Formats: sequence, structure tokens, C-alpha cells
Amino acid sequence: MTTQNRFVAETRVQVRYAETDAMGIVHHASYIVYFEEGRSNYIRQRGRSYADFEREGYYLAVTEVNARYVQAAVYDQILRVRCWVEQMRSRGLTFAYEILDDKDRLMVRGYSKHVCLDKAGKVAVIPEAWRLWDK
Amino acid sequence: MTTQNRFVAETRVQVRYAETDAMGIVHHASYIVYFEEGRSNYIRQRGRSYADFEREGYYLAVTEVNARYVQAAVYDQILRVRCWVEQMRSRGLTFAYEILDDKDRLMVRGYSKHVCLDKAGKVAVIPEAWRLWDK
Amino acid sequence: MTTQNRFVAETRVQVRYAETDAMGIVHHASYIVYFEEGRSNYIRQRGRSYADFEREGYYLAVTEVNARYVQAAVYDQILRVRCWVEQMRSRGLTFAYEILDDKDRLMVRGYSKHVCLDKAGKVAVIPEAWRLWDK
Amino acid sequence: MTTQNRFVAETRVQVRYAETDAMGIVHHASYIVYFEEGRSNYIRQRGRSYADFEREGYYLAVTEVNARYVQAAVYDQILRVRCWVEQMRSRGLTFAYEILDDKDRLMVRGYSKHVCLDKAGKVAVIPEAWRLWDK
Repeated sequence: MTTQNRFVAETRVQVRYAETDAMGIVHHASYIVYFEEGRSNYIRQRGRSYADFEREGYYLAVTEVNARYVQAAVYDQILRVRCWVEQMRSRGLTFAYEILDDKDRLMVRGYSKHVCLDKAGKVAVIPEAWRLWDK
Repeated sequence: MTTQNRFVAETRVQVRYAETDAMGIVHHASYIVYFEEGRSNYIRQRGRSYADFEREGYYLAVTEVNARYVQAAVYDQILRVRCWVEQMRSRGLTFAYEILDDKDRLMVRGYSKHVCLDKAGKVAVIPEAWRLWDK
Repeated sequence: MTTQNRFVAETRVQVRYAETDAMGIVHHASYIVYFEEGRSNYIRQRGRSYADFEREGYYLAVTEVNARYVQAAVYDQILRVRCWVEQMRSRGLTFAYEILDDKDRLMVRGYSKHVCLDKAGKVAVIPEAWRLWDK
Repeated sequence: MTTQNRFVAETRVQVRYAETDAMGIVHHASYIVYFEEGRSNYIRQRGRSYADFEREGYYLAVTEVNARYVQAAVYDQILRVRCWVEQMRSRGLTFAYEILDDKDRLMVRGYSKHVCLDKAGKVAVIPEAWRLWDK
């Protein structure tokens, strides 16, 4: 994965107590939510909110998610979620993520694949106005 | 709170790792979800699913929730959620809860208040067929 | 509840998609986590982190939580969690909360009661340095 | 992935309202918790609890998780989580998962990779008694 020439959105996340587990660290499923937070912010930084996307009658359904855990984060830690579009197709796209701590150490990296659905749940072409994300 | 002459639904819940926190115990917000699990099961045991309630065009919105924490539960522990209707009114109701461990020790007790809404979000009378819960 | 002459911490929270439910609104248990976020930030704004409190050998266990839901929030909405200390005692304290939207409308209010525990799980006096919160 | 000659644990999960999102379906991160539930039950069915594993001084840290979403589940739906050990090594292992609905339709499949850590956080050999899982 490269971020060369890609728009990268950076989102600050501070670990909540509810996101930790009995191992004393952030539960692995919490990072999937951090990815989503990074993705939401990416879309916002490109000029619109994903809420607008839904208001226009579309959904971005998740078809795959992958996370590789390198370092464990703990309560109160400040993380930086980097998110960019790895691949854009007419009916779907792939977001990539890196989560770093405040010393730029990689904590988690991963990707999520999405397909565009209309209100009826059918696969649809992503509206033109929303496809500039791969620039 | 009394359960005298009330229908009480009992629901078995086994603590998930994701529901614990760095204190090594079940996070306090997880019990609110256990309450909901007990409530869902209560409705099912009365003959219908809350999913049917929504399909008929209604919602039971939560207007208040209260939980008192007596003993902490840990990962893998088997809990018993007791749920009953404490008060039934035409437009809303109150559920009460007790969460016990496998030795019948009280872990958490609480209640939740709900109001019936129609699809437009307006307060509505709970349909007759759904109001037998207070028996 | 009054915030007169009290230190009030304000925390910005933006609703995550994972925090919503099939009703299209924020799930009621998510606000309990927002309360915690407000409480964490309150402690930080008073000069220390709750993580330090734990490092010193203490826990603030939750003994009760209460939330009253006034207005429903939705995905992407920006909320403001106001948190203050309602009552401070030697072995425990009560935090109060108000969650407002960006037009200052009250969405949720509530409180949480806590008791100070030492590493052995015994009720303990809150260390002096941590008791200035009620000013 | 094949389950041929493998011990497969089956776990019943009923979708909780809190696990759905504003799309009206189960949030994608919830399945990661269902995987964990299936894994917990797998370990239990092999004769011990993961809680015992931790009591003996070890952790199974997650190093990677992957989920492919085929069909969306909804509130109240009963799911069957199939879990088995895909690969067992001396210091780690891979669990595989299939989540099916009550008509045996595949909803989600995936895997999680784990490494064994001791209390000090160092990579450790999985104790002999816990390595029979690959049979």
C-alpha cells in the first residue's frame, strides 16, 4: 500500500475506556470502528458527509475488512488514523488505513472494501460527484 | 420493585471478552445491552418479537435508563437477566431488571422507561395486542 | 442539578456510525460511553488523567448510572458533553452530565456515581490530590 | 478453507439491537465480536476456558483479523458461528469462521491470527496442554 499522490485524511482518536478489554489494551474490534471514523472523516474532508450520500439514496456496504495488529494501544492514548482511497471502481472502492501513535509508530494497518447499494439493496454505480475521491 | 404475580423472563448471557474493560471486569455500559437482551427476550416469550412491533409501524424509544452496580462480573461468567414489566401505560411502559450470577447473587439491577412512537416519530398508543405484557 | 460555581468540562463528540442502531438514531447505551468520554476529559482538564489515577493504585468503580433521553441524535452529528462533579465525598463522587447538540438543545442528561477502590478491590479514601475536583 | 477432519465448534448467536446500525443491519464490527464468541466457545468445547489460559499466565493476542461479508443479518436473527483451528504452530494459531443463518446461507466468513504472549508481553510457546486443538 502506498499513499503516494493520494489524498490522505488524518483523524485524531483518543482511546475510550469502553474500547479497552480485560487484557488492559484496546480490544481488536475497536480498531474496526477507528477505521470507520477515519473513513467518515476522509469523506467529510473531500467536501461532503457520508450522511449526504445516504440522503441521496445510496449506501456504501462493507464487503471485506482486514486489520493487522502491530502494537497494542491503551486507554487515553492519542492515535492518528490515516485513511486514503486505495482503489476506486464504478460500483465500489477500497479504503486503506494506518493507525499511528503520537511517536509515529505503526499500531494497526488494514483496509476495507465497499460496494455501492441503492435503497432497494441493488448494486449501483457510485454517483459521479462522489467519485473524485481517487484523485 | 417486586416481581410478585408478574411474568418474569429469564435470559442467559455469557460475558464476551469485548464486553470487559481494562479494569478486568464487565464495562458498565455492557449491562445496558444485557438489559436490552433481557427485554428482547421478554417480548419474545410473550409471544412476539420486537421486530414484529417495528414491522407494524411502531418503535419503543428509550426515555430513561438506570443501573445500580452491586457486584462486578468477569469474562466468561454466566449471568441470568431477569426482566419484567414494572408499569404499563397506554403510551409507554417501564421494564425492570435484575442480573444475577450462577449462585443467585445480585450483580446489577435497574430499569428502563419507554415511550411508543409511530413511524413519524409521534407518541402513539401501544396497540392493544401488545399491551397484555402487564399481566 | 446546577452547574453554578462548578468547573464544567466540555467535550466534543461526533456520532460514529457504529454507535447508531436500526432505529436510525444513536443507541441509548452509546450515551453512557459519551458520559465516560466527558468524565475522562473532565479529569484531564483538572490536570491529570484517569490513567494516572489507576497507576497510583486506585480505581473509580461505577456504582450507578442514570440517563434521561430527551432528543435523539443521528450519525455524524456533533454533540457537546458537559460534565461536572455534582457531589464529592471522601470515598466516592457523583458526576453529572448534559449532552447538547450544536444548537444548544438538550439531548440527554444524567449522572454516574462512583466509589474509590484500591488494587485489592477494597473501598478506599480518594487521595487528597484528586479531591480538588469539587471546586 | 476446509473443515475436513477438523473439530468445528458451533455457537448460536441472536442479533442484539445494539449490534445493528442506521443501515438497519448488523454493523460490520459486530461480526468480529461474533468471531470472538465462536472462538471462546471453541476453546470451551475443547475442555477448558480461555479464562483458564489467562490464569495460567498466557494471552492469545490477535495479530490479524479478516472478514468477508456476503449477506447482511438483521435484529433478532439467529446466526450460527462455525469456528475451527485452521493452522496450529508452536507460538500461535489461526482460527477460521463461517457465520450462517438458520437456512444455512453463508453470511460472513473470515479468520483471525493469534500469537501466544506471556504476562511480560513476550512471545511464548503455547503450553502443550493447549495445543491439542488442531486435532
